[in-house]
Amino acid sequence: MPEFAHRLAKAQALMKKADLSALLLTTEPDVRYFTGFLTRFWESPTRPWFVVIPAQGQPIAVIPAIGAHLMGQTWITDVRTWRAPNYDDDGIGLLADTLTEVTSAGERIGIPDQMETHVRMPFSDLNRLQQRLKSRMFASDAAIVRNIRMIKSDAEVLKIQTSCDIAERAFDRVAEIAQAGVPLSQIFRKFQALCLDEGADWVAYLAGAAGQGGYADVISPAADDPLENGDVLMLDTGLVTDGYFCDFDRNFSVGPPSQQVQSAHDTLMRATQAAFDIARPGATMADLFYAMNDVVNPDASGSDAGRLGHGVGMQLTEWPSIIPDDHTPLAAGMVLTLEPGVVVFGDKMMVHEENIVITVNTPQFLSRFQPEKMRVI
Amino acid sequence: MPEFAHRLAKAQALMKKADLSALLLTTEPDVRYFTGFLTRFWESPTRPWFVVIPAQGQPIAVIPAIGAHLMGQTWITDVRTWRAPNYDDDGIGLLADTLTEVTSAGERIGIPDQMETHVRMPFSDLNRLQQRLKSRMFASDAAIVRNIRMIKSDAEVLKIQTSCDIAERAFDRVAEIAQAGVPLSQIFRKFQALCLDEGADWVAYLAGAAGQGGYADVISPAADDPLENGDVLMLDTGLVTDGYFCDFDRNFSVGPPSQQVQSAHDTLMRATQAAFDIARPGATMADLFYAMNDVVNPDASGSDAGRLGHGVGMQLTEWPSIIPDDHTPLAAGMVLTLEPGVVVFGDKMMVHEENIVITVNTPQFLSRFQPEKMRVI
Repeated sequence: MPEFAHRLAKAQALMKKADLSALLLTTEPDVRYFTGFLTRFWESPTRPWFVVIPAQGQPIAVIPAIGAHLMGQTWITDVRTWRAPNYDDDGIGLLADTLTEVTSAGERIGIPDQMETHVRMPFSDLNRLQQRLKSRMFASDAAIVRNIRMIKSDAEVLKIQTSCDIAERAFDRVAEIAQAGVPLSQIFRKFQALCLDEGADWVAYLAGAAGQGGYADVISPAADDPLENGDVLMLDTGLVTDGYFCDFDRNFSVGPPSQQVQSAHDTLMRATQAAFDIARPGATMADLFYAMNDVVNPDASGSDAGRLGHGVGMQLTEWPSIIPDDHTPLAAGMVLTLEPGVVVFGDKMMVHEENIVITVNTPQFLSRFQPEKMRVI
Repeated sequence: MPEFAHRLAKAQALMKKADLSALLLTTEPDVRYFTGFLTRFWESPTRPWFVVIPAQGQPIAVIPAIGAHLMGQTWITDVRTWRAPNYDDDGIGLLADTLTEVTSAGERIGIPDQMETHVRMPFSDLNRLQQRLKSRMFASDAAIVRNIRMIKSDAEVLKIQTSCDIAERAFDRVAEIAQAGVPLSQIFRKFQALCLDEGADWVAYLAGAAGQGGYADVISPAADDPLENGDVLMLDTGLVTDGYFCDFDRNFSVGPPSQQVQSAHDTLMRATQAAFDIARPGATMADLFYAMNDVVNPDASGSDAGRLGHGVGMQLTEWPSIIPDDHTPLAAGMVLTLEPGVVVFGDKMMVHEENIVITVNTPQFLSRFQPEKMRVI
């Protein structure tokens, strides 16, 4: 399996530089990235799952017995299990033994400790593990996992492209399910069904809003209020196929858009295009921010949304972020969302989002860049 | 809002007993339980969300500005925000200031640290927070949050009932989408669409399997293999309405079941009934385990699945677990899954699951207990 072997080799090379004798992985994307272990069972918060990357040799899975069959179908051969849940020792002893086996006293064990991650185990177990391994040192993974995951392989880009294509086809069918009079909550349900019908494995994320000439919030659940003429309907989905997300939105005007709404749409398209035009190696995330912000928000340095885009892949949102403080240089294989927002009528907003992949030359849209004329339903 | 005020009062009474001057909440269900903050935006791992429960007074939300509008619609009045993501300080300063304000030097701050939870913030930020608050002590929350959440209010039971009813209606329609020749992956997509059509807000979890006379694994993604006559198809869903899960499965025989399969089904029904019959205050979780295990697995003390059921509510799986070591006494308001499994043909299994609520008298099924005859499609 060259893809996984390649990921492992990259990690082990960086571990050597960072003086780390092992990596301890605990989250769904980190575990999956190095093993291929794909299951929705992570929705259950009960069981912890651990993968240890040693300085040399293959990754070791330290997992509940219920996962042995599925992990056994990946490229991982060293699978150590316990019967979880176990109130006396829910895998911590087995994990400590494994980490002791692959490291020596005084050596450092890296844990991904940056933004967009956390240590997925009970806090009491994390403390217990640190007690058990006092002769080792827990340290930052020096962003190794994040930095490797940031650059997608061709196979990964293809999976994200597949999710984008499915979402586009679902967005193209929104007129089938959304008209004036239909409650937003029903539109949310039916849109998810459209995504599934077009081939999504599941719809991990759907947000949206509708309001006269714009909306006030982009993270609220759908209310039962019916759509009205003059509303702007926004749907933003992160659907998943084969474990990879897309993340983009589409706006629809219920009836012909007002001049202000069409103008806001135009502004969003210009902002997106401005970032797209410079999105190639040599530019930074901050450059993308200013390219968009100069169009949508020329008088200020940001908005409450906090950023104008981000990475996307095995997670709905990944490192890096399009903010002034992010100086990450763009590199071929990075998949990003461009997500400008604009204020309409003083207290409402409209947001727009596309997905792109950075290449050695010009970037490519993975979603289909929206035309000048706003979609009308 | 009597429901939320009641939750807060219970927490603060237990905090006093446990000598905790504040609780720090970081996970979606814990934050929502005390605030009502419901959004799918948690799917994005980028932003942390914090709620502080002081010894007296109202909860304080310390959250990214993008959530201010939605949090402002809950009963919470003290909402403190920062623009996230912020690479210099992603809310830790604001959180430390808030915790300092509501506690005094030497006092203890409780963090939920038990099974089924974790601290949802980057590990480096957790370390930074502990550094900033050296004059306070971080301690276990003494299972306060878990224990309060374990007993559901009538309003919560009603929400779970709603999710169960929706899932039952979807299961009743499985013959519409599943026949011999249809790939399992397509059945998964169409079943999720059925759940949405019947009223689910979203389908957070779907697992399942199909195989001749049983299946080998209950957590794998669906393959593209078509259903065949003689297969047993199992679908297990945790769909969500108004933020509450159901969690149960149904088995279907493709064509008339073999005698072994029907017999396995009978065994599973008898096991479920045996646990149901004793599920009332006075019994413990261990009692439920042995009631079922004596029927499905009389020669052994457990299986790789590790447990025969668990709590369900704001999470797909919650405390407590139906295992021999769990001596939690049943109490009115606990919502549980009964989930026996049985080995078929030596290397395959069948699992069954129902949802019940404990009352002061006999329990009640929230799902519809399955009849003796196995469902045939």
